[in-house]
Amino acid sequence: MAAAVRLFAAKGFDATTVQEVVEAAEVTKGALYHYFDSKDDLLYEIYRTLIGRQMADLDRIVALDADPAATVRAIIVSLVETTASSVDETAVFMREMHRLDADLMATFRAERRRYHETFRAVVEQAQASGRFSSGVPAETTVLIALGVINQLPTWYRPDGPKSAPALGGEIADFVLAALRPADR
Amino acid sequence: MAAAVRLFAAKGFDATTVQEVVEAAEVTKGALYHYFDSKDDLLYEIYRTLIGRQMADLDRIVALDADPAATVRAIIVSLVETTASSVDETAVFMREMHRLDADLMATFRAERRRYHETFRAVVEQAQASGRFSSGVPAETTVLIALGVINQLPTWYRPDGPKSAPALGGEIADFVLAALRPADR
Repeated sequence: MAAAVRLFAAKGFDATTVQEVVEAAEVTKGALYHYFDSKDDLLYEIYRTLIGRQMADLDRIVALDADPAATVRAIIVSLVETTASSVDETAVFMREMHRLDADLMATFRAERRRYHETFRAVVEQAQASGRFSSGVPAETTVLIALGVINQLPTWYRPDGPKSAPALGGEIADFVLAALRPADR
Repeated sequence: MAAAVRLFAAKGFDATTVQEVVEAAEVTKGALYHYFDSKDDLLYEIYRTLIGRQMADLDRIVALDADPAATVRAIIVSLVETTASSVDETAVFMREMHRLDADLMATFRAERRRYHETFRAVVEQAQASGRFSSGVPAETTVLIALGVINQLPTWYRPDGPKSAPALGGEIADFVLAALRPADR
């Protein structure tokens, strides 16, 4: 998968052959097809591994049942960290995902939706209890928080001036400032 | 350009031939090459037309010299509207831009940077005068505001439940709530 990410990032998905992947990975074609049904399947697995980790992090954070501000901060910082540590995987997948067949695309959309809806439920519950402002719908709030993080692979550099936790902290500060009830 | 956008969106940039573009556009190859040097050039022009309009909107809004909250609101609403009206162009360009040659990529980056820096200067000046909170750096603020808008082509549907101006208004409300000074 690491060899495939490097080739897809450098040459594009279409221009990369399975033969090139097996040569770069120093495995046989038989070995590759033992684990992956197709080049599409390999592309999808690159992303599935990442979103699987992110979904597990989200479930763990929500299960802690901390106050909503701490929960939102932990969700954002954690997602910035895993995204920043996988910029190549995310960039390749985002660029090439429109080539997935209908079944894999449906699976992808379902996984993304579950992440989105779990995050949104945290915001909605805190809005319902008055701990977050209801000035902007929870749906738009989550699109804003996830938008900057999904875009991160286009500009984030691991050797840049700001660490992933620092960046995640700033995004969390911003989102929580916007969600602060008017009377606090 | 409209014919090229449709083909690039449906088949991908690599898989689309110049011959297919001229047939779909009902022009001759000579006519196409009169206006575009190459398929790369055509891809770039699709985007240049859009960012040219967005940059002109930004310059016009900033030149009005309104109060910073009104300026930020106008920037966000205007950018959501032009992006929502060009989701195919934006999606195709974002997906395929890594194929641009180095000169076009440098031009693209310079145009995006000028937009980003003009927007950031509006936030910085209002932070310096105390009209916006300085809790989060202007740079991160702009990345958050632009992140959700740049992602919009991946989920926005013109026939969806929320109009572009309504969505732009919600994003502006959220950003301005986060930028509200603590004492107001």
